[in-house]
Amino acid sequence: MIRIGILGYGNLGRGVELGIKQNPDMELVAVFTRRNPESVKTYTNVQVVSVADVEHWKDKIDVMILCSGSATDLPEQGPRYAEMFNTIDSFDTHAKVPEYFANVNAKAIKGNKISIISVGWDPGLFSLNRLYAETILPEGNTYTFWGKGVSQGHSDAIRRIKGVKNAVQYTIPIDKAVEAVRAGKNPEFTTREKHLRECFVVLEDGADSKRVEEEIKTMPNYFSEYDTVVHFITEEELKKNHSGMPHGGFVIRSGNTGKENETKQIIEYSLKLESNPEFTASVLLAYARAAYRLHKKGESGARTVLDIPPAMLSKKNNDELLKTIV
Amino acid sequence: MIRIGILGYGNLGRGVELGIKQNPDMELVAVFTRRNPESVKTYTNVQVVSVADVEHWKDKIDVMILCSGSATDLPEQGPRYAEMFNTIDSFDTHAKVPEYFANVNAKAIKGNKISIISVGWDPGLFSLNRLYAETILPEGNTYTFWGKGVSQGHSDAIRRIKGVKNAVQYTIPIDKAVEAVRAGKNPEFTTREKHLRECFVVLEDGADSKRVEEEIKTMPNYFSEYDTVVHFITEEELKKNHSGMPHGGFVIRSGNTGKENETKQIIEYSLKLESNPEFTASVLLAYARAAYRLHKKGESGARTVLDIPPAMLSKKNNDELLKTIV
Repeated sequence: MIRIGILGYGNLGRGVELGIKQNPDMELVAVFTRRNPESVKTYTNVQVVSVADVEHWKDKIDVMILCSGSATDLPEQGPRYAEMFNTIDSFDTHAKVPEYFANVNAKAIKGNKISIISVGWDPGLFSLNRLYAETILPEGNTYTFWGKGVSQGHSDAIRRIKGVKNAVQYTIPIDKAVEAVRAGKNPEFTTREKHLRECFVVLEDGADSKRVEEEIKTMPNYFSEYDTVVHFITEEELKKNHSGMPHGGFVIRSGNTGKENETKQIIEYSLKLESNPEFTASVLLAYARAAYRLHKKGESGARTVLDIPPAMLSKKNNDELLKTIV
Repeated sequence: MIRIGILGYGNLGRGVELGIKQNPDMELVAVFTRRNPESVKTYTNVQVVSVADVEHWKDKIDVMILCSGSATDLPEQGPRYAEMFNTIDSFDTHAKVPEYFANVNAKAIKGNKISIISVGWDPGLFSLNRLYAETILPEGNTYTFWGKGVSQGHSDAIRRIKGVKNAVQYTIPIDKAVEAVRAGKNPEFTTREKHLRECFVVLEDGADSKRVEEEIKTMPNYFSEYDTVVHFITEEELKKNHSGMPHGGFVIRSGNTGKENETKQIIEYSLKLESNPEFTASVLLAYARAAYRLHKKGESGARTVLDIPPAMLSKKNNDELLKTIV
């Protein structure tokens, strides 16, 4: 049995807890939290431990799954726990991946542990597909579209506007753009042409909807480069219709082969997820198996999904894979 | 530079020859043929050599790409050349993969070489996607659909019928079935419900179209379990409209996560190929790079795509991958 620890018990941590029951070779040993452990109620009544005591669990956990955020928690936690445990995380600040990799790698080597970073679907499965597709079709363009799905970052940005009580923001790929890519037209897009942003906003009593809408639509980095639609709704409507966390997206490679590059070849990978955190958790668990095996082989250091032989994720042995998968 | 040899110069071998120019770290050294070398005209005027002389090329070629058929050639050639060269092949008789793997593995170990078998898109990229998808979503079903595309095996079967001069057969996935899978309905299908077979047939002078149509539709293994549509056309029409070799297909995993497995999660991988052999050749070349590197590392034996770390396919180094792909 692979003994799993969960560090951080939010949506992602809960997803990992639920996912473990689908993997009969894994058992959940403990959840680690910065909150008062007694205040944390888990689905499975597994032991909840203060993160202050985590060092005492070094020999009781094979793989620690770090379920914290990328903005401030992981840059500090990733390297720290990489020295103590084999770790998996979903670090998703693309621009900072090289720096984060270097920091985690140094500590994982020092601790003689394996850390697989930036696991999930983007980065993660989408990274894999970008790599396979551009390597197989060297002449061509790769397009990544996200959605339709809830962006926590954009929802939070709206919630920080004065007069906003609550908000949910959907990122929506624009059909016309996706179709042009699928048709092999190799188009060039502005930001506005690829994705639309749709916002469902609950106002505080007496707030000025015109001003809030204007503030959303002109917010730099988040909304100003996009076409943005704003709907004002009640808190009840928000809870009833927008409390899920769906997401998904597409990676499409449009390439060319042949004597004069005249032959169109399209590779498309897509996800349609009813729950983003539950799906991300499922990916983390598959890579936890790989981390466990790499550590058993005596390897150490940081890895990304690009470094892991696919067979190492599977419960099946080589004979079963040859018979049922190849 | 990775020195490539091509053994077998049909559609696939020609695709490899064309694909090499998209991979600046590779050079084509020679084409090996069972025909009279002087009768073979290549695109690039590369040297053409009789396969009888192949042993003299052991030190001049880093990876030999076997471009022969799976029915009779590869079962014999695969093990034989695995002892002499690092090899890549597209062995695609799914049921015989375990036996073929064992035979190639024994010889590759004996020769201290690497052989990556069953490379292409199915087996190959579709195998990878079946593995990733079922490992990440353990609860669920995987569906593979093929087409729309030309099946050489089915086209050949029609051509063997008395009175048939020429024929092209398309395998077509049935939209309703694909949509039901994408909707997460986890349907069970009969063979007939997943794919349709459409045939374009040129008759010999005086042949009885009614009898030919009946013979096609009732042919066991190939057509009797399918709904089959037969069109009789002229040789000119066949050449003009059906001489391409398009293909493609879908691997869809419909899985569930959550407390009561109530959350639907769909992973879909699809290919839309204007040329099946040119695309397959492109996949073979990416894996030739991996074979070269594994051999340089001192590894030997047979491998499938499931064993190869994705990063090993890419021309990019780890820093570039962290910056541009993850």
